[in-house]
Amino acid sequence: MDRPYILVTNDDGITAPGIRKLTQIMNQIGDVVVVAPDSPQSGKSHSLTIEVPLRYESIELEGPQQDFACSGTPVDCVKIALDKILVKKPDIVVSGINHGSNSSINVLYSGTMSAAIEAGVEGLPAIGFSLQDFRYDADFDAAEDYIKEIVQKSLKHSMPKGVVLNVNIPKLKKEEIKGIKICRQADAKWVESFDERINPHGKKYYWLTGKFNSNDEGEDADEVALSRGYISIVPVNFDFTDYHYMKELDRIMN
Amino acid sequence: MDRPYILVTNDDGITAPGIRKLTQIMNQIGDVVVVAPDSPQSGKSHSLTIEVPLRYESIELEGPQQDFACSGTPVDCVKIALDKILVKKPDIVVSGINHGSNSSINVLYSGTMSAAIEAGVEGLPAIGFSLQDFRYDADFDAAEDYIKEIVQKSLKHSMPKGVVLNVNIPKLKKEEIKGIKICRQADAKWVESFDERINPHGKKYYWLTGKFNSNDEGEDADEVALSRGYISIVPVNFDFTDYHYMKELDRIMN
Repeated sequence: MDRPYILVTNDDGITAPGIRKLTQIMNQIGDVVVVAPDSPQSGKSHSLTIEVPLRYESIELEGPQQDFACSGTPVDCVKIALDKILVKKPDIVVSGINHGSNSSINVLYSGTMSAAIEAGVEGLPAIGFSLQDFRYDADFDAAEDYIKEIVQKSLKHSMPKGVVLNVNIPKLKKEEIKGIKICRQADAKWVESFDERINPHGKKYYWLTGKFNSNDEGEDADEVALSRGYISIVPVNFDFTDYHYMKELDRIMN
Repeated sequence: MDRPYILVTNDDGITAPGIRKLTQIMNQIGDVVVVAPDSPQSGKSHSLTIEVPLRYESIELEGPQQDFACSGTPVDCVKIALDKILVKKPDIVVSGINHGSNSSINVLYSGTMSAAIEAGVEGLPAIGFSLQDFRYDADFDAAEDYIKEIVQKSLKHSMPKGVVLNVNIPKLKKEEIKGIKICRQADAKWVESFDERINPHGKKYYWLTGKFNSNDEGEDADEVALSRGYISIVPVNFDFTDYHYMKELDRIMN
């Protein structure tokens, strides 16, 4: 195989330490093009920029890769990279490393995972990487060898079309990480409580805050694997159909 | 059962004809509270407003329902409605009627469906309604009886937790609609082509445009049902795990 052609993106923005680390690891594996948001896009999920046009520009950052900063969301970045920036179809699309976990239900809200899923919709192998530490200066070095291995194995064993990997890394030192566990998405959710404030003109406004709440103690749940010191990998697909409920629903509706 | 307590939302904005029609239909069934975006939020998917605070205000619109316009996304509307606005847990959350189809892969991008899915995450019965006609003055009357029936049946036969309905309505006259088909999400995608332009200062910018492309001719695909004149209902869940691929992936990674 020729040197793999790799697209890198994220949702924290092109200068975030997480994507710089991922780019550095990918440079060891193949020829890398980074197309990532020019500003933080956390929580943007699968949103598209429709009402305003997009822009992108080549920027100079350290390393042999090419870097393009785009004005849009993570999904916009993947779309415009494939249509306008890349010179050929990439062999794989990697997204992250996200500052903060995207395990369990967070896959729904995550721009990092949506970028990977969008690549999956395009029929490309794709992986989202996230670290269970949202700090700007989180330690992205500990999982370097694992990330390299996961990408190399994904390139070697071509994944079936429509399957995207959601990789979450526990906040641990290198020697404390116990290995890799293949998991299902844990059944958990955020319990919201909006923080109510009053502005200087007497009007109320609200900040979204919440507490992550998982009661899923299943051996195969990603949250459980992470809490035990494993890197969790959930194979994700984007056929949302609940096949089990189709027959019963037909009985109710017809 | 008491009169059902119904939350209505959408992504086209609180004054869009689609949500006004849905509200009017829901007023026939129960006590209605509308919490919807104060501006169009199409293509916002499951995005959250994190960096800026939210606002909402009560507004006066025709009908017996209460209306609240919120500055956030459709998912924000559901979250703030449940935490701050509603006086009790709603019996059902309905979203739409969207101006334009949310069949097939569009469920990924749709704010209308994300609002319904968010309600599902909260353990509530939820339905997203969309009409295959994106025009402002689309005919939302044709499917009125069907919408009423679908909501009433969903209230009567309590749906399992974690299942949300994605209802799409063909652009047809009332007498041309053939009935309801329970479907799976069709395997289809958008083929993007960014429209490149140059601004007065000589800089390039891009509008996202695309063509919807479905080659899925399966009898049970939502696109096929719609093209044959049926209302399609896809039961949707938000466990994205690809269970079939877990064992094989474990073999590759471990």
